[in-house]
Formats: sequence, C-alpha cells, structure tokens
Amino acid sequence: MAKERKPLRSEMGWSTTDTITVRGYDLPNQLLGKIDLGGMAWLEITGRMPNPKEAEVFNSLLITLVEHGMTPQAIASRLISICSPEAMQASVAAGLLGVGSVFAGGSEQIARVLQTALEGKDASADLTALASEIVEDHVRRKAPIPGIGHPLHKPIDPRTPVLFGIAEKNGFRGRYVALLEAISAGAETRLKRTLPINATGAIGAILSELGFPWRICRGVAIIGRAVGLVGHIAEEMRNPIAYEIYERAEHEVAVNAAAKPSDG
Amino acid sequence: MAKERKPLRSEMGWSTTDTITVRGYDLPNQLLGKIDLGGMAWLEITGRMPNPKEAEVFNSLLITLVEHGMTPQAIASRLISICSPEAMQASVAAGLLGVGSVFAGGSEQIARVLQTALEGKDASADLTALASEIVEDHVRRKAPIPGIGHPLHKPIDPRTPVLFGIAEKNGFRGRYVALLEAISAGAETRLKRTLPINATGAIGAILSELGFPWRICRGVAIIGRAVGLVGHIAEEMRNPIAYEIYERAEHEVAVNAAAKPSDG
Amino acid sequence: MAKERKPLRSEMGWSTTDTITVRGYDLPNQLLGKIDLGGMAWLEITGRMPNPKEAEVFNSLLITLVEHGMTPQAIASRLISICSPEAMQASVAAGLLGVGSVFAGGSEQIARVLQTALEGKDASADLTALASEIVEDHVRRKAPIPGIGHPLHKPIDPRTPVLFGIAEKNGFRGRYVALLEAISAGAETRLKRTLPINATGAIGAILSELGFPWRICRGVAIIGRAVGLVGHIAEEMRNPIAYEIYERAEHEVAVNAAAKPSDG
Amino acid sequence: MAKERKPLRSEMGWSTTDTITVRGYDLPNQLLGKIDLGGMAWLEITGRMPNPKEAEVFNSLLITLVEHGMTPQAIASRLISICSPEAMQASVAAGLLGVGSVFAGGSEQIARVLQTALEGKDASADLTALASEIVEDHVRRKAPIPGIGHPLHKPIDPRTPVLFGIAEKNGFRGRYVALLEAISAGAETRLKRTLPINATGAIGAILSELGFPWRICRGVAIIGRAVGLVGHIAEEMRNPIAYEIYERAEHEVAVNAAAKPSDG
Repeated sequence: MAKERKPLRSEMGWSTTDTITVRGYDLPNQLLGKIDLGGMAWLEITGRMPNPKEAEVFNSLLITLVEHGMTPQAIASRLISICSPEAMQASVAAGLLGVGSVFAGGSEQIARVLQTALEGKDASADLTALASEIVEDHVRRKAPIPGIGHPLHKPIDPRTPVLFGIAEKNGFRGRYVALLEAISAGAETRLKRTLPINATGAIGAILSELGFPWRICRGVAIIGRAVGLVGHIAEEMRNPIAYEIYERAEHEVAVNAAAKPSDG
Repeated sequence: MAKERKPLRSEMGWSTTDTITVRGYDLPNQLLGKIDLGGMAWLEITGRMPNPKEAEVFNSLLITLVEHGMTPQAIASRLISICSPEAMQASVAAGLLGVGSVFAGGSEQIARVLQTALEGKDASADLTALASEIVEDHVRRKAPIPGIGHPLHKPIDPRTPVLFGIAEKNGFRGRYVALLEAISAGAETRLKRTLPINATGAIGAILSELGFPWRICRGVAIIGRAVGLVGHIAEEMRNPIAYEIYERAEHEVAVNAAAKPSDG
Repeated sequence: MAKERKPLRSEMGWSTTDTITVRGYDLPNQLLGKIDLGGMAWLEITGRMPNPKEAEVFNSLLITLVEHGMTPQAIASRLISICSPEAMQASVAAGLLGVGSVFAGGSEQIARVLQTALEGKDASADLTALASEIVEDHVRRKAPIPGIGHPLHKPIDPRTPVLFGIAEKNGFRGRYVALLEAISAGAETRLKRTLPINATGAIGAILSELGFPWRICRGVAIIGRAVGLVGHIAEEMRNPIAYEIYERAEHEVAVNAAAKPSDG
Repeated sequence: MAKERKPLRSEMGWSTTDTITVRGYDLPNQLLGKIDLGGMAWLEITGRMPNPKEAEVFNSLLITLVEHGMTPQAIASRLISICSPEAMQASVAAGLLGVGSVFAGGSEQIARVLQTALEGKDASADLTALASEIVEDHVRRKAPIPGIGHPLHKPIDPRTPVLFGIAEKNGFRGRYVALLEAISAGAETRLKRTLPINATGAIGAILSELGFPWRICRGVAIIGRAVGLVGHIAEEMRNPIAYEIYERAEHEVAVNAAAKPSDG
C-alpha cells in the first residue's frame, strides 16, 4: 500500500457539525431564499454566483430545454416507470440516457464549432469568411451543420428570436451569435435551402457568450431534461399511457411475426 | 391488429409549425424570460404556474437538494465519466441512480408518514397524539423514523430553521410542519436521544404543505441532484480525482488479496 | 485524515504482470475454454465452480430470462439507441433499469417467500399447511401471490414443466419446488381460479434449490436480460423500429392535445 | 392520426397461449437444456444457433470480459448499491454505463480498424503493408492504436496466446488475427516500444473472424460485464466495502477543503 498518492480535492461542498458549505458559500445563510435553481446550477458549474443578467439569460436557456413533448426519452422514462415503480430514479435515468448526440447534443456541437472557430481571434475577425469555411468543411465531409434547420419549425424556430432578444437585452448577443447567424446565411446560400437557426443552435451560441466551455454544454441539456422527465413521470402517475404504448407495439410485432416465417 | 385502443393523451407539450406549447403555455412568449428553472419544475410537475410565494419556497427546497459534497452518487458519476467521456448523460445517470431509499428517499418517506396521518383529518386533530402513535409504530417495527436525527449535524441541522423560516414567511408553515415537530419531540422523549428535524424531514414536510403528493417527492430530490451531479462532472473535467479513487481501491484490494489465499 | 480504516478486501479478481486471477482461478489457464458463460456467472456469484449438473440447471434458468419479445424494457433500450447511438451501454442500461419489481422481480419475491417459509424447517415440514398459511397471508393483505398465474399462458406456462424436468433430472427438484406446487394448488382451491406455476415462479423455486439467497435472484434476471437487450439493439441496427414507435406516439399525443383545450 | 405507418416487425420473440418462440426456435423444447448462455447470446445477436466450435470460441471471449477486478465500473455499482438497495438493476446499470470508449471500447475500435482495412480485400492482400498504413495513420493523428500495449501485462498479455489458441483450434485464426499481429509488430518497430496484442485486441480480432460487425462488438463487452457486476453486487452484500470507499473520499475532501480557502 506504499503507492504514492495524489490528494483528493474538491470545491463542491463539505460540512461540519454546524455549517454546510457549497461552492464556498454558507448554504443556509447565503443561498437558501436568495437564489433560484437556475442560479444554483450556474454556481455549481462555474463556481461563482451569477449576476442578475446572467441568471436571466441562463434560466431562459434551461427552460427551453425542459419540455419537448413526447420524445423518445420521455417514452423510455414512462416505460421504465411501469416496470420499476419502486425506483423513480431508474425511470428518470433511463430517459436521461437519451440526452445524447442525436436529440440533445446539438448545443454541444455548435458551441464546439463556434468556440473552435473564434479561439484566439480578436474583434477584427471576418465572420463571413469563417462561416464560409465552416459551411464548406461540413459540405465536404457530408456532415450536417449543427444548430441550423428544423424538420417542423419553418421558416423560423419561434424560440430563436426570443432567446436572442433576452440575450441582447442582457448584453450577451455578441460574436458567437453573429458567427452562427453568418453560418445560417452562408448555408442557405450554399445549399439553397431554408436553414434558420434552431433553438439548439441559439442555446449553443448563447452558452458560448456566457463563457461556458463547449464540453459542459451537454450538462445544461441534462439539467433541463431531468426536470422535464420528472414532469412526465408525474403525469404518468396521474394518467398512464406507457402500458398502452407497450401493448400496441408488442401486439403488432406478434401479429406480424406470426404472419410470416422467421428469417432473422 | 384489431386490439381495442385507449387513446394516448398528454398535457406536457406539443408543437405546430410556428408554436410550441408547454403545459398549456406558449413557451417562447409566456415562459421564456418570465420564469426561473425552479418555477418551471413546479409547472411541469403540477400543471400550473407557481405564485411568487410558492416559487420562493419551492426553489429553496430544490437548492437544498443540489449539493451534498462527495456523496456515493457524486463518486459514481465521476468514476463513470472517466470510462465513458463521450457520454456525459451516462455519468449523470449513474449517480442519479443512487437517489434511492437510503440517501435521498427520506423526504418521500416522511411526506408519506405525514400525509397518511393527516389524510381526512381537520384542524382539530390532536397532533401530539398522532405523533405519539407514529413514534410507537416505528419503535414497534424497529424502523427508523424518517426525517429526524443526523449523524453529523447536532444538536440541530442548520438548514431546518432556515427552511421553516422561508416557509413561514410565505404562509407554508402549517400542520404538516407542526406534526413533524411533534414527532421529533415525541421521539426524543421516547428514545432519550437528540433527534432534531433534519433537512430531509423539513423538505418532506414543506412539500406536503405545498400540496405535493408523497409519491412525487423523490422527483424533487432527483431534479436537485441532477444539477449537483453536472456540477461534479464539470469539476472532474477541470480537476480529476476519480482515477485516483479507483487506483487506490484497486491497489489496496490487489495487495490484500495477494497477502492471503482466496477463500471466496 | 486520521480516520480509522477498514481494509478493502475483495475476492473477485486481481492481476500481476503475468497472471490474472478471477475468483481464485487462473483465468487464462483454468477458465478460458473450460467453462461457458452460464458457469462463469455461477462462479462470479457463488465463488465456486458449478458441477455439470448445476451448470445445466443454471444455464436453463438464465436462458429462460433472456428474451421475452417486445417488452417495455426492450422498447426503452431501442428508443435510447436512436438518441445516443454513440453509447450502446446507455441503451442497454436504460432497458435494464426496468428489471424491477413488476416485470422481473417475481423470481426474487417467490424465492423470498419459499426461503422464509422453509428456513429452519426439516424434512418433516407440512408443506400443505405452510402453503395454506402463505396463501391466506396474501389473501388477507390483498397482495398477489408471486410465481403463479399468467395473463396469456393458460392452463399452463409451457416453460414450467420443462424447467422442473431439467431440475429433476439433475437432482434439484426438492422441497422448494414442492412447496410452490402446494401454493399453486392451494391458491387455485382458495381463489377458484386457474393459477399454474409460471416461469418466474419455477425460476425462483429452482434458484432456491440451487442454494441462491433470495436477495441475489434479481441479479440472475438482470444477467439474462442484459443478453436479450443486446440482441434487441443488434436487431434495431439492422431493422429499426424505435423511430416509428416514437413518431406514432408523438403524433397521436399532438393530435389529441390540439383537439381539446389543455386542462393539465 | 392519418400518418402513414411503417409496420413494426421484429424477429426476437413472441408468444401464443401455449408456445414461446425465440429467434424462430421453440424456447421450451428446442433451447432449454440444449444450449448454454453464451450460445444463447450468439443466437440473440446473430439470429442463428452457433455450432460447437463457434460456441467454444465465443464463450471464451465472453468469459474474458466478465471480471477485471476492482474497476471504476465495479466501484460505481457498489456505491449505488448502498444508496438504492431496493433496486439492484440500478446498481448494475450504473456500472454498465462505464462500458464506454475508455475501459471497454477497445474491442469495438480494433474490430473497426481491422474490418475497414480488409473490406473488399481478397486473400492476396499484403497485410504488412496494410498494417504499416494503419500504424502511420495513427501516428500522424497522434491517436493510440487500439488493441496493443498494456500498462501492466508485459511483455505479453497472458490472455492473448490462450485466446488465439482456442480460436486456432476451432478454425478461427485467420486474416483478422494476422493483420492485428502485423500491426503489433509494425508498431513496435515504428515506435520502438513493446506493444503486444492485449486481450481487448485479441477479442476484437476474433469477433471479426466470427463475423461480428464492429458496431455490435461493444455489446459483447456489455454482456460479459453485466455478469461481472452482478458478481460484485453479490460480494458487496456479503462483504461490504463501498461505504468505506465513500467515507474515506468524503473525509479527505472535507479535510483538504477546510485546510484552505475555497477558490473554486
């Protein structure tokens, strides 16, 4: 057991008999009743209290991420809730596992694109040229450009102008937003399609304005979605539909399987 | 496929080309910039907007649940983050799976006790007698009484008076809180030990005052903890300690195993 | 850091530069090519190698648990696989979270009933009387008796006689099986319904014969189901259906929600 | 609800009143007692029964993946088991979430490299040249070459020759194994380091020989590890160590945090 050790350090929180410290603050006396849950999320992630402008913008991003209706994640959470009603944490976790690259990773991806493009650049950077490079790079790799286009919300995503308005009002509509606007415009010209900035893109750009490294952006989606999935479990308790979804699928599969010989 | 069907209904959210409705509200125009994340959680779970008093109290409960330091859940999340860095949702979910009966189920349990005891009772109920019955029932079953006592915070849990103060200021210090106080007092007399109301107990009682059914109380803990676990992952990215925790344990187990013959 | 320490000990496995020991065996030379996966599961759980009779019986139980068609767990895994294709472990874990009290906890429950009833009893125990007590106890508590009855497989579950036959051939059809048969017969008489022993019940009884404590029985279901869920993900890769399940549900919910004013 | 529908089809399994079909086989009469769990896993993933040679090789790969001692996944499972003892599925799932890119994704990665390199190539392919290209490509991208090298097992991984021996005996030591050997040799020359084929590499190569697409290889690791994690939970029930691991970490973090002012 003579292995050399690196000391374990963390600034998240610790307690003594009569104190509870969270991120350097006295929880009962400096945080309770003085901060809302969105501000607390900011404190947890960044290590400092948000000012009121930051708190308003950050809360609006979080709220946008809470509820997207009957998503695959919400259905998965509901299905697991009928199997493991003794363990609500299992139901929420099951749905949360779907906050991955496809349905919720877009903010992370566009934040990465924007932060990488502007790293080390000063205010004189030519955003139109940068946007053009980004569009061409994606076209060459046949990769979809994150943060723009939406299957349903056309010609615009109704969340985007509201989020940008809240950001602007609070002083967080800067060059990340501008670069994303240039990407959207450039992609529309290049690909001859309507490709408006979607909510995911707006969130990735505004998180960049707020100083969040792209690697943590998925965490913001996870927080929002955890709230929404608890909401779905609460509704499933009052008005269950998961059993119906399961039975329909099972029944149809059995009927279709019986109708033809198995061939794997 | 002639199976009779129950229609699938949900009030959580849905979209059209130019609108996004969440719990009956127009998300971009009625919610963004007008509500914080704690209020949004209230809306998701209850289906209606909180008033400012409800929002203040509910946010204070949520914030109490966010960060408890280096818990087993936080360590589990950090350990999984070093295995699956490509999937932050997996790390957060791993820790969230520990929001179970032992470390976080207490609010649910005490809310159940309080709500069951007061169901159908009017204001004339004798709380001291009810508390005494509850204490005796637990003593007889050798079951710990949820919501009272704390291994570290003695003689009082510093969060409890602050939470009760916020509840009182907003008109939510009622008979559930009073019954829990009677349980604490009764248990101290009966068991001759200091058994103050802990934060978990205060949260369960105040959630009962706010009208939350006990079955959903674990969901409030899940929301709070999801925020805290994202905070731990963010710190683990900046200042990793999970690998050290793992290596120490693996090393010690190997040394101890090598020192004696295996006997299962 | 002067906290007194309990040494960390584990007999599961450890390595040196040129050896790998698992449960006391030399993995490359004593296990690889000499044991199948079911036998390895036995070794992991019990700490000793199964004999051929134990291995045959245990494998038959595991195989029964692998594939139950389009269950809620399988659908949940498939839904998460379309959200997080980069993280197959997340998809399998999501479905596995449904191996809970409702769909897969029955073996654990009936094993608990059987093991509790026969604890400390010798061969002279009156199984009919014990069964009658168990049935009456469940009837009084209005609790379903685990391990008997099936919504589809009537009058018998076709797996049960085969599993009991394999157990008998190998010397593991003993008093736990006999007690379960007495419970089934007693419940049919008492409740005037066909209540045959289902596969879950057979598995719980045979695991008891094999010496597995009831607390670990759910683990056997988890192992079987993990195999099945990987099978579902593999099929979903070849022949995707999760997106269709999701889109139908989302569409129907949106149509139904639009047709009436929201009332939460 | 007029949305056009794609029928839901699956070949995994379905039931009628008196039959249970899994992958086209009659479960009670054609599978129980006639196949072991490893063979069942093969059937679930590929849709056909393995022959005895395939079953022996596949079981040896699965068994290699079961138990790697006190890994981060095993510690995470144990930590969650002390939080949610009512939900063993949650504990196993928590650990399984760590079967990601770092600790267990190697088989998938090397299988991808090998399958991509040999796709469309016939027996005349120059494996040394292919290996050299692969090594150069990784060196250029500064990416580690999967499947070779090991921090502890030097100069060889003791599992590799045994696995290759079992594969050879059964007719599955072909060009994928040969290409991996060429990669190992090429990398050792190019990088002037000992870089033997590790167990992960051997598994990825042999799965390729068996015809498994690289995309499903992580599923094989997931199955093996699910068995191992149930084993760890079973040991944690008999001989708990998770609480000690947690308490040491929490204590050390609190001591270190108290010793200096917080600076986030």
